[in-house]
Amino acid sequence: MKVSELGEFGLIDLLSGMVSDVRDSEKEVWRRLILGIGDDAAAWQANDSVQLVTADLLIEGIHFTLDITSWEELGWRAMAANLSDIAAMGGLPGYALVSLALPGHTEVEDVTALYRGMIGLAQQFGTAIIGGDVSGAPQLVINITILGGTGSREGNILTRSSAGVGDKIAVTGYLGASAAGLEMLKEHLAFDSESASALKEAFLKPYPRVHEGRILIEQGVKAAIDISDGLISDLGHICQMSKVSARVEIERVPVHPAVKTHFGDRAVNMALAGGEDYELLFTASDDTVNRVKAATSCPVTVIGEIVPDETGEIVLLDAEGNRISLPEKGWEHFSK
Amino acid sequence: MKVSELGEFGLIDLLSGMVSDVRDSEKEVWRRLILGIGDDAAAWQANDSVQLVTADLLIEGIHFTLDITSWEELGWRAMAANLSDIAAMGGLPGYALVSLALPGHTEVEDVTALYRGMIGLAQQFGTAIIGGDVSGAPQLVINITILGGTGSREGNILTRSSAGVGDKIAVTGYLGASAAGLEMLKEHLAFDSESASALKEAFLKPYPRVHEGRILIEQGVKAAIDISDGLISDLGHICQMSKVSARVEIERVPVHPAVKTHFGDRAVNMALAGGEDYELLFTASDDTVNRVKAATSCPVTVIGEIVPDETGEIVLLDAEGNRISLPEKGWEHFSK
Repeated sequence: MKVSELGEFGLIDLLSGMVSDVRDSEKEVWRRLILGIGDDAAAWQANDSVQLVTADLLIEGIHFTLDITSWEELGWRAMAANLSDIAAMGGLPGYALVSLALPGHTEVEDVTALYRGMIGLAQQFGTAIIGGDVSGAPQLVINITILGGTGSREGNILTRSSAGVGDKIAVTGYLGASAAGLEMLKEHLAFDSESASALKEAFLKPYPRVHEGRILIEQGVKAAIDISDGLISDLGHICQMSKVSARVEIERVPVHPAVKTHFGDRAVNMALAGGEDYELLFTASDDTVNRVKAATSCPVTVIGEIVPDETGEIVLLDAEGNRISLPEKGWEHFSK
Repeated sequence: MKVSELGEFGLIDLLSGMVSDVRDSEKEVWRRLILGIGDDAAAWQANDSVQLVTADLLIEGIHFTLDITSWEELGWRAMAANLSDIAAMGGLPGYALVSLALPGHTEVEDVTALYRGMIGLAQQFGTAIIGGDVSGAPQLVINITILGGTGSREGNILTRSSAGVGDKIAVTGYLGASAAGLEMLKEHLAFDSESASALKEAFLKPYPRVHEGRILIEQGVKAAIDISDGLISDLGHICQMSKVSARVEIERVPVHPAVKTHFGDRAVNMALAGGEDYELLFTASDDTVNRVKAATSCPVTVIGEIVPDETGEIVLLDAEGNRISLPEKGWEHFSK
């Protein structure tokens, strides 16, 4: 069978099964392990805190192109995607490793611009780049590893598997702006300057919700994920891992205002399936969601609730409570 | 300027300079940092031990090909290269993250064979694969990150910058067998079965010197590196980072017997510049080297000594003590 037939998530399941098969609970590394493959980051119990680590591999032509993204913006985006995985665990990022592979004809000043973008964002979270690797390649390849932690011995973490029946489903910020920004840049669409700059920034300079992740933890939230593949797809990961289903009222989904203004009927779809918004999607009781709202200046919107049904189905409801069909799903590698 | 003109090590210097420029000693992450970019792994002081992390990016066609290496052997080799970086710090590996990017037409059983190779070696050191990432790419790309530690609060580590004038230079095991194995496989050379299997194993299934790294620490060694680029090149890294020079008596270099037998005049060159032997190169006083020899069943050979001269020059001497010229240097990315 080809990888394209099995699909990205099928392959991940297969490989994580192989790893679990050799799990040896007599060994300390396994005893300390809290979360392995399958969440936004892996987690284990160190003596003084819960430690987190996440890694992300980005390939030119697959994950990014350099026609509409400058090298500095690319550095920022790559770092943002990784920091967002730590945010989705409710953790604090600490150290980063950056491995680069690139063609010999690359301009040195492009590489330093890439690093400037990464360092610029990393600094805002007190994250230090402490290692990595440089080598040759036919196209640009970037791998970023980020190490983080909860900062205390009994630190809680946000997981994909903790959603409970009856939980409200909520998101931070507004959705769809990254996908809309990408389309605007690609198609050279001309919008009013306020919309144009908001959409451009959403795509090129996303800001990971690290502070909001900490607030979720402080207010007692247990289940969260960052919206990288797309709302529907990422909510699907939560439902599958938590063995529950979800109802989403699409009228309540906080579509970014500039997306509403300029993309008409397609705006909701961009918010549901666009991806790379790097907002946090979480589930919690009504009370907990209200405490989160009170604790942060970031918009928090309830969009639906978790329902019983182990199949992990996502049901979309319109304003009248009628089921509507799912839009195209989020990004999956190897899918046609 | 192009990256190819600046060279791999020039680019690393430039990027690590950018990172150092934003070092903020008031921030805890920086205060705890022991070693950043430039050694085999990065190191920082956690509350209960020194933590180590290393990452390595491998690209098909640049770092490996799949014509003479099976997928399972490739998995083993990739894991070995990373474990060897932890060995070179005298650390114990703990957790590994594996990110893969590959074409959709890849056979699933090839990917599981790759994982089998990685898991097979990782298990021997109690290392657990706990995360990673899978995505599409035009060619196979593998990034492995390994986290390790010293196992105790005041754990010492082996660094590239601790070699002192008067230290003996010593290596574990025998050298040149990996380069010879690669050539044997590529050129379909026919050797006696004992030599063939030794050379093949040296190239395809290198065994990282994790146990020996621990013995070096226990016996008080301070300076070490693993031989990945080649003896001369890696000794050069130690000399540059320690601001010393080195004299190597080439008659004393432990060339692998099968390489001597089958590669004649080229054998010494393979041992000096071949790379990927994943033996440890270390420097220490005569007494310390003798204690290491007594503590391990692994062969340990003194090949020269560290001399004063900040330029980091490597002088090769023949049996009569005459200087001889350096062979081709070790592997450097972007060099022509």
